[in-house]
Amino acid sequence: MKPSTLSHSDSNLRSTIAKLHGEFAEKLEALVEVPSVSMEPDRHRDVRRCAALACEHLRAAGAEPEIIETAGLPLVSGRLVRDPAFPSVTLYNHLDVQPADGEGWKTAPFKLQRKGDRYYGRGATDDKGPLLAGLFGARLAHAAGVPLNFQFLWECEEEIGSPSFAAAVADLAKGKAGRPPLRTDSVVVSDSIWPSSRRPALAYGLRGLLGFIVRLRTADKAVHSGTTGGAARNPVAELAALMAECHDARSGHVRIPGFLDSVRKPSPAERRDLARTGLTPRGFRQAHGLHSLRVTDGRGLAGAIMTAPTFEVHGIVGGYSGPGVKTIVPHEAEAKVSCRLVPDQRPREIFGLVRRFVERKCPEAKVEFEAALEPYITNTRGPYIQAAARAMEQTFGKRPALTREGGSIGAVVTMSKILRKEVVLLGLSLPEDGYHAINESFAWSQAAAGIELFFRYFQQLAALGRAGKG
Amino acid sequence: MKPSTLSHSDSNLRSTIAKLHGEFAEKLEALVEVPSVSMEPDRHRDVRRCAALACEHLRAAGAEPEIIETAGLPLVSGRLVRDPAFPSVTLYNHLDVQPADGEGWKTAPFKLQRKGDRYYGRGATDDKGPLLAGLFGARLAHAAGVPLNFQFLWECEEEIGSPSFAAAVADLAKGKAGRPPLRTDSVVVSDSIWPSSRRPALAYGLRGLLGFIVRLRTADKAVHSGTTGGAARNPVAELAALMAECHDARSGHVRIPGFLDSVRKPSPAERRDLARTGLTPRGFRQAHGLHSLRVTDGRGLAGAIMTAPTFEVHGIVGGYSGPGVKTIVPHEAEAKVSCRLVPDQRPREIFGLVRRFVERKCPEAKVEFEAALEPYITNTRGPYIQAAARAMEQTFGKRPALTREGGSIGAVVTMSKILRKEVVLLGLSLPEDGYHAINESFAWSQAAAGIELFFRYFQQLAALGRAGKG
Repeated sequence: MKPSTLSHSDSNLRSTIAKLHGEFAEKLEALVEVPSVSMEPDRHRDVRRCAALACEHLRAAGAEPEIIETAGLPLVSGRLVRDPAFPSVTLYNHLDVQPADGEGWKTAPFKLQRKGDRYYGRGATDDKGPLLAGLFGARLAHAAGVPLNFQFLWECEEEIGSPSFAAAVADLAKGKAGRPPLRTDSVVVSDSIWPSSRRPALAYGLRGLLGFIVRLRTADKAVHSGTTGGAARNPVAELAALMAECHDARSGHVRIPGFLDSVRKPSPAERRDLARTGLTPRGFRQAHGLHSLRVTDGRGLAGAIMTAPTFEVHGIVGGYSGPGVKTIVPHEAEAKVSCRLVPDQRPREIFGLVRRFVERKCPEAKVEFEAALEPYITNTRGPYIQAAARAMEQTFGKRPALTREGGSIGAVVTMSKILRKEVVLLGLSLPEDGYHAINESFAWSQAAAGIELFFRYFQQLAALGRAGKG
Repeated sequence: MKPSTLSHSDSNLRSTIAKLHGEFAEKLEALVEVPSVSMEPDRHRDVRRCAALACEHLRAAGAEPEIIETAGLPLVSGRLVRDPAFPSVTLYNHLDVQPADGEGWKTAPFKLQRKGDRYYGRGATDDKGPLLAGLFGARLAHAAGVPLNFQFLWECEEEIGSPSFAAAVADLAKGKAGRPPLRTDSVVVSDSIWPSSRRPALAYGLRGLLGFIVRLRTADKAVHSGTTGGAARNPVAELAALMAECHDARSGHVRIPGFLDSVRKPSPAERRDLARTGLTPRGFRQAHGLHSLRVTDGRGLAGAIMTAPTFEVHGIVGGYSGPGVKTIVPHEAEAKVSCRLVPDQRPREIFGLVRRFVERKCPEAKVEFEAALEPYITNTRGPYIQAAARAMEQTFGKRPALTREGGSIGAVVTMSKILRKEVVLLGLSLPEDGYHAINESFAWSQAAAGIELFFRYFQQLAALGRAGKG
């Protein structure tokens, strides 16, 4: 499209975006059909294929794409520069997706399927749909002559805890390998979820993550529960007991000494605000398909998912898992655990507490570190978050709720530390999208609003000018 | 062979048996190659194929085979009758085997492989090898003119708790479907394990079994541990905690109120005898490949596996089981549990106690009954067990230890109740055979001794005459 075709009036902008529906669906289809599961080594070829496809999308949008190799999976960079004198914004998204191994998918997870307004497929809302909304918003702003330069950073290792991202961003910031140093005035990340689809939300904090595996091996092989049962140790049962010692599974309360010591208590005002995000136990249960909750009221719910840490047992693997009961005593087991962490918990310190606790309770158990992401919190009065709030109000007709995100995005902390600029979390995912769940989806209506939101945010950024001058 | 070729002298008997090695290996190979896994519905066709093959083996031994249909998998009957006036013995074994899904098999489980004296393959020791030893022993005795009739009963549902066996045996005893009523003077079952290969053992008791599954479902699908973690219930963690409430995983002590009330305490003399079976913690650990035990001395070990009940968690299924950590909150889980029971615990009563306890602790959890076998104990001074002890001493040169078996054989209780005759447990399996484990095996030396043992036992039975008269 040409700049002249686009006025900034609401109706013109919206009808322009409406015409992009087909193209958006086509591009999302192409991205979803590549099973870019970073967690599965067998899929790493597909992750690289997805990075190559993303480069094509960048090139089609007029941006200059580049695949940046890292110690792990690559990082995709795209630069859409109008004039180096203009302010610039970095858009972060990720191309990798969660595995789709759960039962209950109603359609093939890596084949985009439309049902009414909604597109189903792994990665639709996390994060391929929001990625395209950002790209389309930038393309529209560029075409409309908005005086802003765009730097896209699309990661391929977000779902495995961004192990190579910090080093890659540090290199970009330094300008290694003949590249000019990456300079940006702000960063925008679209990979978060509104607490309720009834009210737009702008997150000012993220929980961190500590992932680990507890392993216990008590024999060379599984043995007969008649012949040896009673004398043979049972590693599945011992790990189960250990999990119960680490936390109260019913309330979620973590019992590991020192675990809660560094939790920053939210102020009464913050707690009040967080309880007003539109989040209700009933709505939350329905959105996520939960039959009951550990909490009973909206305030308790906001606290549980936004400002409190967790100890989550993802699975206890070992022993017999086929039909019926097989009377063996298992010989080895592993508990797959992660903790969501909140400010000011530090993943490495918490890992030390967990390891010491486990090894004291069961000296033969080994605690293996898997992943760590720092929690994140930022000032809600920063100029960029305020600009985002205005863009949200223009787009959705409502002031956004200021929330803290229950999830973790390691790249946010990394970019905040290395690029030293404000990071705005302009999420588009809705509770009903099935983020990380089966039957993941993204609605075109939300994508279209997202494109509009990005466009308006970019206008705001252009008006702010260069960081520190605006 | 003709009766005239076989004298009863030790050396003649042993050289006759030695010549059967090749035929034994061939027949065992044919049986092991049929994956008769009763626990896997997909293998039921193979189970039936195994029953048909067993009929051929019976026919080749001169017995009259019959496949008796039941509500489930069939029962194979074989009759080798010399003169209806002679006493008769019923030989019970089973044709079905455990699944072979564990990792670590060094050879294909359903392909018999020889290494020196030892034959590897699923079912080699449980129970196809002992079944053939019984058949060969009977054939030799028949050929030698021992005045005894033989009734073989080979079950195909032993590994799934013998659901159809009681009804089938009741029909046989009544003489339904035009058959003469099954009359026997005693029963011999070869499906148990010596505590130590250093001393032959004769079991006078068996533990019973109660198998059940505890299921908990808290959501429609797995959800994202960032978005919902802290508020969403976690069924894997809750079942883990529930297992820890049911029993102390480290010591094995069962905490369910009432569970231990009906346990018959072994007398000090019995405990002393059981501790003298050759069982040592070190030997037991080595035989079963266990790195450490719940108990530290021989007496504690004998108590743990022979006279105490257990609460065994075979697996907690649900959530994520792939590589690494996947940050989901699981939506459903099941704990696969069985309890070994001892006299005078009754499976149905214990099931009621477990269900009430679980439903009180977690009302949403469902406890599903899977299987029950009564514990068994008999008088060690009975004429048949004493005859078996003499045959063992003749064969192995040592008085057998009188032991209680940690495992369960439902058919023993069934036959004892319905046929109302003494049941002798003439087991041949050794701790190093990997009963119910990977790399299951059976040694020809033990098979040959087993054939001799059966032959000598049958001579003893002939000498005892008709039950109640001998």
